[in-house]
Amino acid sequence: MSDKLLKAGERIDGLTSQNIKIIQNPDMFAYSLDAVLLAHFAGVSKLGRGLTVDLGAGTGAIGLFYARKVLGKVALVEIQPDLAEMATRSVALNDLTPRVQVINRDMSTVFEELAPNSAETVLTNPPYFADEARQNLDEHYRLARHEVTVDLAGVVKVGAKLLKSGGKFYMVHRPERLMEIMAVFAERKLMVKRIQFVYGKPDREANMVLIEAIKAGRPGGVRILPALVAYDANNDYTPAVHDILYGEKWS
Amino acid sequence: MSDKLLKAGERIDGLTSQNIKIIQNPDMFAYSLDAVLLAHFAGVSKLGRGLTVDLGAGTGAIGLFYARKVLGKVALVEIQPDLAEMATRSVALNDLTPRVQVINRDMSTVFEELAPNSAETVLTNPPYFADEARQNLDEHYRLARHEVTVDLAGVVKVGAKLLKSGGKFYMVHRPERLMEIMAVFAERKLMVKRIQFVYGKPDREANMVLIEAIKAGRPGGVRILPALVAYDANNDYTPAVHDILYGEKWS
Repeated sequence: MSDKLLKAGERIDGLTSQNIKIIQNPDMFAYSLDAVLLAHFAGVSKLGRGLTVDLGAGTGAIGLFYARKVLGKVALVEIQPDLAEMATRSVALNDLTPRVQVINRDMSTVFEELAPNSAETVLTNPPYFADEARQNLDEHYRLARHEVTVDLAGVVKVGAKLLKSGGKFYMVHRPERLMEIMAVFAERKLMVKRIQFVYGKPDREANMVLIEAIKAGRPGGVRILPALVAYDANNDYTPAVHDILYGEKWS
Repeated sequence: MSDKLLKAGERIDGLTSQNIKIIQNPDMFAYSLDAVLLAHFAGVSKLGRGLTVDLGAGTGAIGLFYARKVLGKVALVEIQPDLAEMATRSVALNDLTPRVQVINRDMSTVFEELAPNSAETVLTNPPYFADEARQNLDEHYRLARHEVTVDLAGVVKVGAKLLKSGGKFYMVHRPERLMEIMAVFAERKLMVKRIQFVYGKPDREANMVLIEAIKAGRPGGVRILPALVAYDANNDYTPAVHDILYGEKWS
């Protein structure tokens, strides 16, 4: 680890399967399994040559994991300056600087840098919690987890506007908000096509939902993929998740 | 089997766990696993003393299976006279005549017999297919499986109107229509609270969805239950489904 590369409190985490390193500061924000599973779940359209946008990118985990699946440009949009700065260093660390760009902005102003109807793919792991932000939370975590600077409707509005007609929107969120998610997607003409629920254990309720929608797609045809269970009875990753983390590069 | 009880082509099928017998004619219509799983999935409110309505009851399978879980009255609403007549004989066969009533009507006219806001629970296994009915299908199956006499929006409208505020709506349907289901429920202020996906095999996509919604419930809080897998690799029922069919009476 180079002293130049890392600041105090930072460390490098990595995703073995995709050969990606992410600079993180666990006191500020650290990506979780959600990010890995969304990047894995997201499909590749048009041979991966189009523009991909990661909305609310944090330290850039989802966009960087996904960048290995595509040939085109990837834009990481993040409002928090210090997270965006870390993402910029991670992009360089992975030798992806020519292709992956960090945009340090409130996503509602992203159209000053990216054109509407320009993206083939939008990826997002938005804040999950609609309830009032806890005052005792670190500010970085607060903005990442609570709907302080943007809410579900806002993220979906920006994502839908960024996408070309026929472009794909990928989101990870909490199942408890599924009905609201469907309503907000419908309002923006994002037609849900593929859903996968993630379960902590096989006998528990799902704690994560991965969603694919097509801008201006035809209604109907929702596919519910086989359940993805994250941990076994010993709290080890299941073979399916272990393979996503440590197995072959994703195809 | 009594000659009086059964007509030509009819047979008696049964659900062991609930000790219910259903008179069926496989040439006309036969209930499937969907009916059993919905009746099992449906919860019991207010000690089971309220009114339950099975909308589009066919030969009465769902309503009769569920009748064993509750103390109150159950109304089976079915438009097809010969299926309604079979249901009436099944009610008698199970000694449920004082408590279970068959209403042979188009459900859109059910309010001539049942008051709006009177039901605690509505159960429905509506026609799944929005596409044009196949001409070569037997008429009984055609009306049961295709949206000929009523469509999704129509069933949900009637169900919502029948329910008391806080009453529960239970439906089994196909996952491919999930987005439309959510939209139609939202329009009728039926807030989705619990969903279970049913998979034919563990590695396949879900082919059935069980949904619970509350009339005028609070938004949010959707729970996705553990995946229910119907068959194992040998095409035998999984232990979970075998237990629902042949195990202890449902609590």
